[in-house]
Amino acid sequence: MKRVMLTVAYDGTNYNGWQLQPNADTIEARLNTALSDLLKEDINVIGASRTDAGVHAYGNVAVFDTNTQMPADKISYALNQRLPEDIRIQDSREVDADFHPRHCDSRKTYVYNIYNAKFPQPVNRLYAYFTYNQLDVDKMKRACEYFIGEHDFASFCSVGSQAKTTVRTIYDLHIEQNGQMLSIYVTGSGFLYNMVRIIAGTLMEVGRGKLELGDVVTIIDSKDRSKAGPTAPACGLALYKYEFENMKK
Amino acid sequence: MKRVMLTVAYDGTNYNGWQLQPNADTIEARLNTALSDLLKEDINVIGASRTDAGVHAYGNVAVFDTNTQMPADKISYALNQRLPEDIRIQDSREVDADFHPRHCDSRKTYVYNIYNAKFPQPVNRLYAYFTYNQLDVDKMKRACEYFIGEHDFASFCSVGSQAKTTVRTIYDLHIEQNGQMLSIYVTGSGFLYNMVRIIAGTLMEVGRGKLELGDVVTIIDSKDRSKAGPTAPACGLALYKYEFENMKK
Repeated sequence: MKRVMLTVAYDGTNYNGWQLQPNADTIEARLNTALSDLLKEDINVIGASRTDAGVHAYGNVAVFDTNTQMPADKISYALNQRLPEDIRIQDSREVDADFHPRHCDSRKTYVYNIYNAKFPQPVNRLYAYFTYNQLDVDKMKRACEYFIGEHDFASFCSVGSQAKTTVRTIYDLHIEQNGQMLSIYVTGSGFLYNMVRIIAGTLMEVGRGKLELGDVVTIIDSKDRSKAGPTAPACGLALYKYEFENMKK
Repeated sequence: MKRVMLTVAYDGTNYNGWQLQPNADTIEARLNTALSDLLKEDINVIGASRTDAGVHAYGNVAVFDTNTQMPADKISYALNQRLPEDIRIQDSREVDADFHPRHCDSRKTYVYNIYNAKFPQPVNRLYAYFTYNQLDVDKMKRACEYFIGEHDFASFCSVGSQAKTTVRTIYDLHIEQNGQMLSIYVTGSGFLYNMVRIIAGTLMEVGRGKLELGDVVTIIDSKDRSKAGPTAPACGLALYKYEFENMKK
């Protein structure tokens, strides 16, 4: 028996998110089916991040246990043959038997893409949120600094979350601009439900001039979801990468 | 009566190219339908570039004549309301009544995208050609220089072309690298049928080491299509922009 870790990339457009659900097409369901079929065992993956419907990934992570003789690093090739083209394994490797992607120290990075132009661009319509509201990028960059560090992010958590605490640490939050595309990169040890999308929505309100820099501090201090900006749409969000400590076999 | 020029962007994935054809969904057909519906006139656009099935555009161009009272620069907004989301007008403006986008001096730029990695990336699968063959980008950049200038590009023209002459001028050909994405930009006054895709296919053969730099000269001199590389797939190609001389009203 060995434990194998997969790095999973997907276009989330046509899926009802990561997590298994009755009567819904999900990334987890597709992985379980393809792996069980490939390895002739009943495989149930454990996902690192249960991304929402329509959210994309460059590097989500899943682990599973198997008795296969197939070398762990060859599973990526064989599995990709059995997956639809909007899901592609980027890496497969053996990890310690007790490695669990949600119960270990990790840093994860999301990217939120915004296409800011007069009209939408068809080729990025599924992978970036479009807005014609002119955004002040320098001001958005300055606003990023207020989020970095350990804070109670209750204002940036959708109602209904079952998190025990709303304190989280953001290691890095910055914006890269490439022509009319803005990419907000945020790295933390973990995020509350919809936290990245609410941060992106709040930064856009700053960029539009609906919120001032000082308002960001007030919003964080208020611990009140209704004070922050809207939850930005799913299509702009992608799970960019995971970094784990102590996972190597 | 006035002549209006449209700058048209589209995701070509779900279309059978630009040009009107019986029983096929094309960009030209969609524009004619949406314009005729909007302006209550029978509109038939004249396209600058009749892109092939699956090819994308950031800035293809079309003109049409209309008696509408609607200001030319407002047509873009109204037309986008009537087009599917994979076609979006980027600009509309009035031009001289005798301006014809194929019979005038222009420079057009195409981009050919190549994603060069171990495994495909789902979110770019429809907009870049994937190859796991490791490409020597420096060598490809050096090969670009041989194409620039006026040459007989008969080796880079698909059989069946009705061009009177196969002499064309390439003003610029260069490669931009962004991580694992390579973008080949080529600018010329006009291109032969499949010329950009055959140049991209040939540059990839150079990058893989199947062709040497000196071979590029030999291929051009041979005027023989069978000597050049394969026609690279349509999904990697996008019409990037047009620049016209003397078109302003």
